[in-house]
Amino acid sequence: MRSGALVVDDLPDPVPGPGQLLVRTLACGICGSDLHTLQHADQMADMATAAGGGLGEAFPTRVMDVSRDVVMGHEFSAEVLACGPNAEAHKPGDVVVSLPVTMDADGIHPIGYSNSYPGGYGELMVLSDLPLLTHTVPNGLDPHLAALTEPMAVGLHAVKKSVVRKGDSAIVLGCGPVGLAVIAALVAEGAEPIIAADFSTARRQLAATMGAHVVVDPRQEPAIEAWRHAAGSKRVVIFEAVGVPGLIDQAMHDAPRAAQIVVVGVCMESDQVRPMLGIVKELNVQFVFGYDPIEFGETLRRIAEGELDVTPMITGRVPIDGVAQAFTDLADPERHAKILVVPNG
Amino acid sequence: MRSGALVVDDLPDPVPGPGQLLVRTLACGICGSDLHTLQHADQMADMATAAGGGLGEAFPTRVMDVSRDVVMGHEFSAEVLACGPNAEAHKPGDVVVSLPVTMDADGIHPIGYSNSYPGGYGELMVLSDLPLLTHTVPNGLDPHLAALTEPMAVGLHAVKKSVVRKGDSAIVLGCGPVGLAVIAALVAEGAEPIIAADFSTARRQLAATMGAHVVVDPRQEPAIEAWRHAAGSKRVVIFEAVGVPGLIDQAMHDAPRAAQIVVVGVCMESDQVRPMLGIVKELNVQFVFGYDPIEFGETLRRIAEGELDVTPMITGRVPIDGVAQAFTDLADPERHAKILVVPNG
Repeated sequence: MRSGALVVDDLPDPVPGPGQLLVRTLACGICGSDLHTLQHADQMADMATAAGGGLGEAFPTRVMDVSRDVVMGHEFSAEVLACGPNAEAHKPGDVVVSLPVTMDADGIHPIGYSNSYPGGYGELMVLSDLPLLTHTVPNGLDPHLAALTEPMAVGLHAVKKSVVRKGDSAIVLGCGPVGLAVIAALVAEGAEPIIAADFSTARRQLAATMGAHVVVDPRQEPAIEAWRHAAGSKRVVIFEAVGVPGLIDQAMHDAPRAAQIVVVGVCMESDQVRPMLGIVKELNVQFVFGYDPIEFGETLRRIAEGELDVTPMITGRVPIDGVAQAFTDLADPERHAKILVVPNG
Repeated sequence: MRSGALVVDDLPDPVPGPGQLLVRTLACGICGSDLHTLQHADQMADMATAAGGGLGEAFPTRVMDVSRDVVMGHEFSAEVLACGPNAEAHKPGDVVVSLPVTMDADGIHPIGYSNSYPGGYGELMVLSDLPLLTHTVPNGLDPHLAALTEPMAVGLHAVKKSVVRKGDSAIVLGCGPVGLAVIAALVAEGAEPIIAADFSTARRQLAATMGAHVVVDPRQEPAIEAWRHAAGSKRVVIFEAVGVPGLIDQAMHDAPRAAQIVVVGVCMESDQVRPMLGIVKELNVQFVFGYDPIEFGETLRRIAEGELDVTPMITGRVPIDGVAQAFTDLADPERHAKILVVPNG
């Protein structure tokens, strides 16, 4: 990302420091946040600063300077090429996935949203050697499937942070990769029924494939109506997985009394809500973000052991010079869910 | 309330139906919601309709018609004058307080926000005989103090619905009657320190009297800064007890990572928030409203047994023809916290 556009260019090879690994990217998913970032990079950096640097006041995180080059890509698998000083947990040839953060003497750096640490749309990255961050891919799992660990962990985290437990019902608004990850995690948790809503036929089919029990086109039947028919007397949690203005207020309007709304869609703009809708129904709004290392590792295990089949979510693969076109193609939800970048393919 | 103004007029005496009591009002507090309602009555009725009738879809609640007369007042104590058919739990002469709702064959009616059931700014009311709703005032408690059961129960409920437990810290934004009730409940829960913020000197003094450990004028020191100095490493819950647009976003901006914000101030207008502030810090926003009958009874017990001294909150008393002036006087936070209407004084 250079001056608000995607360009292909050669950069100096990154060099692993103490406790770091040099890796070769095997696959990297394109995330909706990257599309947002390309369009609203200034806004995103401002918001990260307003929010205290992303990870909160406890850990000063570097906020990227969008006037300088950023190699995006934070949903990756990779092969270890070389180990920096004191990096002993991994060895060359290991296939790994990693939480997209690394550390050095300057603090914590988000891989893929940093001026210092290139992300997985490039050929080479530097990862942390810490086993808590960087996990060896087990069971000979296809590295292309392993690259889905990161987005699927987002869904697991959202469900773990919610009050949903086995037997509760759930509504998922939006069946892009985030919504699909939430659906998969709800299935694993034993939520039933899961009502999923999306305007796109292809995405509704994917939602059903991932385990949603009822799928609706909200233009024909609002999700809340479908929920009333299917589970109107059960406890319900509404997952807002769209991330555009107006959706939180819509969920607050539709929610039954005492419901929880989990905001997992990333709305970067300012938004309008009617607090009275929350007040008279005593709603709980839980904002969620990311996942923790345990959830990340658990997601990798599920995929590797065949409990979670992410194959249907991968709808395309592109080389480095296909990234810009892939960003455009992702605008059509009928064609694509997750496109993998294969920089060394 | 007639055509958007407060007038004094004679109405027919209300008649208790089966399971109801005719009572004489002894005292009735003026609530900020009544001031809001007088100014925004249409808006409030629309919002109640949008939210499904106040108590949610389970109980169809009658929404008042603001083009017809409404006798407001929902924070009252009263003396039983007569019992309707089958009303056997109370007897004439009993001094009672009641949750401001009653039931009849038409459904649930909010006393004080109804065209059918007059509230405590009038001389006579009809209450439910159910002991769950209508409690006999124990210990010879002064009925004027008993009238504060309702607003103080709002604070107890807000704290019970929050994640605050003994030893946690808390910030209370706004020290009107709602904020003061929250402070009193936080003291009872063992929260420490409690940081309270208000522009008004008199209200800050009241906050300290009710048990706040640190009080600040936010123009001189933001509450979050005072919290950082006093308790920056403790878990914190922020209670938004102001209820004007912008305050929820402000609390989201100031909150540390993973904090809970409890919205107990009633903002009737649409409001602007930045979801990203909630997302990157994984905030939890709990909207709260009212209290349950157990919390109401527990609050009455605390006041009657001297655990909770509400005397400092009562800053004035007026007869029926003083209500309109009292509404005006309440606009000055330096003069008043809670004014009691004494219709039969």
